[in-house]
Amino acid sequence: MNVLVINSGSSSLKFQLINMENETALCSGLVERIGQDMGKLVNKLAPDTDDERKVVIDEPFADHETAMKRVVDLLTDENDGVIKDRSEIYAIGHRVLLGGEEIKESVKVTDEVKEIIRKYIPLGPLHNPANLAGIEVCEHLFPGTPNVGVFDTEFHQTMPEKAFLYPLPYELYEDLRIRRYGFHGTSHRFVAKRAAKFLGKAPEDVNLVICHLGNGCSMSAVKAGKCVDTTMGITPLEGLMMGTRCGDIDPALVPFIMERKGLTGEEVDTLMNKQSGLFGICGMSDMRDIHAAVDNGDTKAETALDMFVYRIRKYVGSYFAALGNVDAIVFTAGIGENDDIVREMVCADMDLFGLKIDTEENATRRGTERSLNGGGKTEILVIPTNEELEIAQATVKVLG
Amino acid sequence: MNVLVINSGSSSLKFQLINMENETALCSGLVERIGQDMGKLVNKLAPDTDDERKVVIDEPFADHETAMKRVVDLLTDENDGVIKDRSEIYAIGHRVLLGGEEIKESVKVTDEVKEIIRKYIPLGPLHNPANLAGIEVCEHLFPGTPNVGVFDTEFHQTMPEKAFLYPLPYELYEDLRIRRYGFHGTSHRFVAKRAAKFLGKAPEDVNLVICHLGNGCSMSAVKAGKCVDTTMGITPLEGLMMGTRCGDIDPALVPFIMERKGLTGEEVDTLMNKQSGLFGICGMSDMRDIHAAVDNGDTKAETALDMFVYRIRKYVGSYFAALGNVDAIVFTAGIGENDDIVREMVCADMDLFGLKIDTEENATRRGTERSLNGGGKTEILVIPTNEELEIAQATVKVLG
Repeated sequence: MNVLVINSGSSSLKFQLINMENETALCSGLVERIGQDMGKLVNKLAPDTDDERKVVIDEPFADHETAMKRVVDLLTDENDGVIKDRSEIYAIGHRVLLGGEEIKESVKVTDEVKEIIRKYIPLGPLHNPANLAGIEVCEHLFPGTPNVGVFDTEFHQTMPEKAFLYPLPYELYEDLRIRRYGFHGTSHRFVAKRAAKFLGKAPEDVNLVICHLGNGCSMSAVKAGKCVDTTMGITPLEGLMMGTRCGDIDPALVPFIMERKGLTGEEVDTLMNKQSGLFGICGMSDMRDIHAAVDNGDTKAETALDMFVYRIRKYVGSYFAALGNVDAIVFTAGIGENDDIVREMVCADMDLFGLKIDTEENATRRGTERSLNGGGKTEILVIPTNEELEIAQATVKVLG
Repeated sequence: MNVLVINSGSSSLKFQLINMENETALCSGLVERIGQDMGKLVNKLAPDTDDERKVVIDEPFADHETAMKRVVDLLTDENDGVIKDRSEIYAIGHRVLLGGEEIKESVKVTDEVKEIIRKYIPLGPLHNPANLAGIEVCEHLFPGTPNVGVFDTEFHQTMPEKAFLYPLPYELYEDLRIRRYGFHGTSHRFVAKRAAKFLGKAPEDVNLVICHLGNGCSMSAVKAGKCVDTTMGITPLEGLMMGTRCGDIDPALVPFIMERKGLTGEEVDTLMNKQSGLFGICGMSDMRDIHAAVDNGDTKAETALDMFVYRIRKYVGSYFAALGNVDAIVFTAGIGENDDIVREMVCADMDLFGLKIDTEENATRRGTERSLNGGGKTEILVIPTNEELEIAQATVKVLG
């Protein structure tokens, strides 16, 4: 049984075809620059195996439907295909950004579900329309094949009111649904389940602090398997310092900067989302470049790294306070899985929280789930995330 | 030796004359509605004693100079005065909001100091001009008497870069001095010293988490007597939820609300500062009203209280992470000194942090410094703040 996983962006289309018997990807691809003069389709066959093979196609893709058609042709191609025909696709799982309070778990796409995705366009102006376009293209190209929506906000819908409400006029919540939604939910949910399994426990028996540290960064506090708090808010800007996003700042700074620099709302939004974070401090957004620069004595890079880690540590403390007791702190995503320097800095001098990192194991690179605990009372885990697999699993579960 | 303490606001003038031999206030007063058709001067003689007596004067005060002259007349009045003439005033200590990075400790006012206060008007547009006006009026009315500036930001100047920098484009720090300054510094400094003394230790031997919870709320992390982090930022809006201020929110909400509600920068600033916080959620900003409403089953009031406490608890956790080990958590200001419900909720289920509150002692009202520790490894202290005394002490020390 194969599930096609689709992440449709405004000018891109990510796809993965997953064989659910062994939970491995048959192929994993990306179409870029949809709607532009020239586009690009890259598809990896048997990705992350010794047999990995890449197919690259340079041609224009007028719209998402054209791109999706080309992907289907490729999937069923005689030479470069991985299936005989589209009937071998059991179902299609779609990543959707924002489902608001209506969507608390993954759901088979109906007209009503599409209406909800449409309703939240004002809060997810870039992603929700693109996600919807991806769904509609699939409905058209795969008549009879079920589509399932897996929302980035689902996992965080269990947050209590005290965690999700903003201390703003209550009417803003009632009228405009202004509240904390949280993002990266698919990753946090996948990692929470895997971490429980790694600890040999049921998800409802563990409390976790999960650090999803990639280009976007977010943390979640998970109590008895359910999310009770997360750092991202109504948008993915709040919380931790990220590659180019500022995270938490004094909100009064926003009108102040607009006035002093003569910026519009859109421009200050761009400044906070694209010109801030690690990049804003040291001109680099990739943590590998920053480590190299620190080694070369770049003091701005050192400052950026210190700030990045300090802000994670503060949230670790917050979430221990929110949870009362914590079984494990879990690192995932690009930086979380691969950056031993950041992990060591986050866990240093945190005896109070029962964290004692095994520096040797931490410094070793492995792509597997593992413990970095060097004898502390709180586990330190690395769990590689796999959002596509989580979407595929959720899709199968919904269709039961 | 008497020190006159002045807190000059845009249309108000607070004053206190303190006898430094016994550190008690001879009188404590407030002039309101300066520049309006009718003003009011209220002065308490021997405040907070059995002999307390109130003098009330209703008359217009054209400007700060007129108001200050009237105060001097009153201080030296035959019947309602507390001194014979102004020569009995040794020095004048002024509360000043923002001294930026130039002012790291209290300082005798010179032309250079006034220039610095002027320089930071863009960051403290309401307070710095009024503080400066108060100083200039005193220079004029008390020739030869030294004026000392005691800045709200001083105590926080020891914060390391990783705590005071915002993850925004670095030029904003270089060009506009955009960084976290912190406020309530005079209170945090006073309380930090008193807490160390209460614990029988030198300030440099204690780590503290100080919760200044009044109408404005802020917390600070104090390491070896020095502030290493605080919740308020470049303005007093950041950090905790307050009476009418929102504290931390997703910064992307600011342009979003402006656009959706058609607000200017100034209007959204007012919304966040005056219509949010406890008031925004439940329509009440006074914690006593909120407790009464909770008792009457008001669920919005309960939500507001839960949010208020939850956000304090998260910062408690953060600051334990920032400090590594903590000798005491300290409560001060209106709510901190008097609200046993909030204190108990903040400390509940915080065994991990060594907090175990003595519920009986906590429920008892006292105006004195005391411990609420019920056997935990971290002290829980109540230390009544006294910003005027701190200003007077700093004034004497500077002139020392």
